[in-house]
Amino acid sequence: MSGVLLDDLIEALRCLPGVGPKSAQRMAFHLLQRDRRGGHTLSAVLSQAMDRVGHCERCRMYTEGALCRVCDSSRRDGSQICVVETPADRSSIESATGYQGQYFLLLGHLSPLDGVGPDDLGMPILEQRLTTESIEEMIVATNPTIEGEATAHYLSRLATRHGIRATRIAHGVPVGGELEYIDRNTLAHAFNGRLIIDNE
Amino acid sequence: MSGVLLDDLIEALRCLPGVGPKSAQRMAFHLLQRDRRGGHTLSAVLSQAMDRVGHCERCRMYTEGALCRVCDSSRRDGSQICVVETPADRSSIESATGYQGQYFLLLGHLSPLDGVGPDDLGMPILEQRLTTESIEEMIVATNPTIEGEATAHYLSRLATRHGIRATRIAHGVPVGGELEYIDRNTLAHAFNGRLIIDNE
Repeated sequence: MSGVLLDDLIEALRCLPGVGPKSAQRMAFHLLQRDRRGGHTLSAVLSQAMDRVGHCERCRMYTEGALCRVCDSSRRDGSQICVVETPADRSSIESATGYQGQYFLLLGHLSPLDGVGPDDLGMPILEQRLTTESIEEMIVATNPTIEGEATAHYLSRLATRHGIRATRIAHGVPVGGELEYIDRNTLAHAFNGRLIIDNE
Repeated sequence: MSGVLLDDLIEALRCLPGVGPKSAQRMAFHLLQRDRRGGHTLSAVLSQAMDRVGHCERCRMYTEGALCRVCDSSRRDGSQICVVETPADRSSIESATGYQGQYFLLLGHLSPLDGVGPDDLGMPILEQRLTTESIEEMIVATNPTIEGEATAHYLSRLATRHGIRATRIAHGVPVGGELEYIDRNTLAHAFNGRLIIDNE
């Protein structure tokens, strides 16, 4: 805190990811010059959110209530559960697909070297749900990274132990991508995981 | 306001310039997951700044007091005044050059088509200063755009009327560019290589 409000504001804005000194300055001047009302709204919502937003008891998504919107809805399919690493991953799946089932958020991935084990990822909560709920399919949507794959492996074994079918989202060439520019691993994966073309 | 705090936060973050839905979501999740304290600080400073930051009476820079840091300082040279368009331009000059004189901020440029005339740019305040203060040189540091050049022309005539030498920062700055985004060296070069404006 420099005691000069403008400098303090520029400094405080740098807590946002991807915001350096120049962007922070631009944001501060923009708010002061053109959008003080927006600045006030942001301040109020930010303070409330930092205080009140916690994790959903069932799926660990961010929410200010006990349950998030999806867990609280009676219209979602209780036979499917999709396991993702982050809230952003869940948001992407919600907006891109027509998925109507349940979710579970790991808020990370298995990483023994960093001391992140199953308990840190809420696996006991997930196992409890697999036991008590009538789940038939676990859709494993962790990232296709080394840690994400290890986590996927752990999850699939967990599902199998509870007699639940585990599925993995498909990995391959992105739609709209060009083969020439796809990295070797992805292309090899896509090639080996080829599917029969159904012409019916 | 959707009534869901997380959605409200993402929406509120979009008041920041250059922040779209994806970035806003990333910022919200980052603050919730890793930096709630930073979020609280930002909220508090933002609210204070929106309420209390106004314009310096002498130079029109943003400040919470009657005078900004530069105008309040007794160590700045009173014989030079540098006229810039925006607060960001002033910050750039402060950090890139060793300038020790005074400033005046237009908070815009002459733009008759948009109805922006001399009065909107605080020219009466500037003229008052030229009359009452012992200013010997006016450094015109408006942007090298069409409107900036027109404003520079206006300013140089104003200075001449008051028997003050008008100088223009050198055109090392690419024409069509904006001061705020020029690299420090170019800006320092242009600032130091300023030339006398010839009104003949």
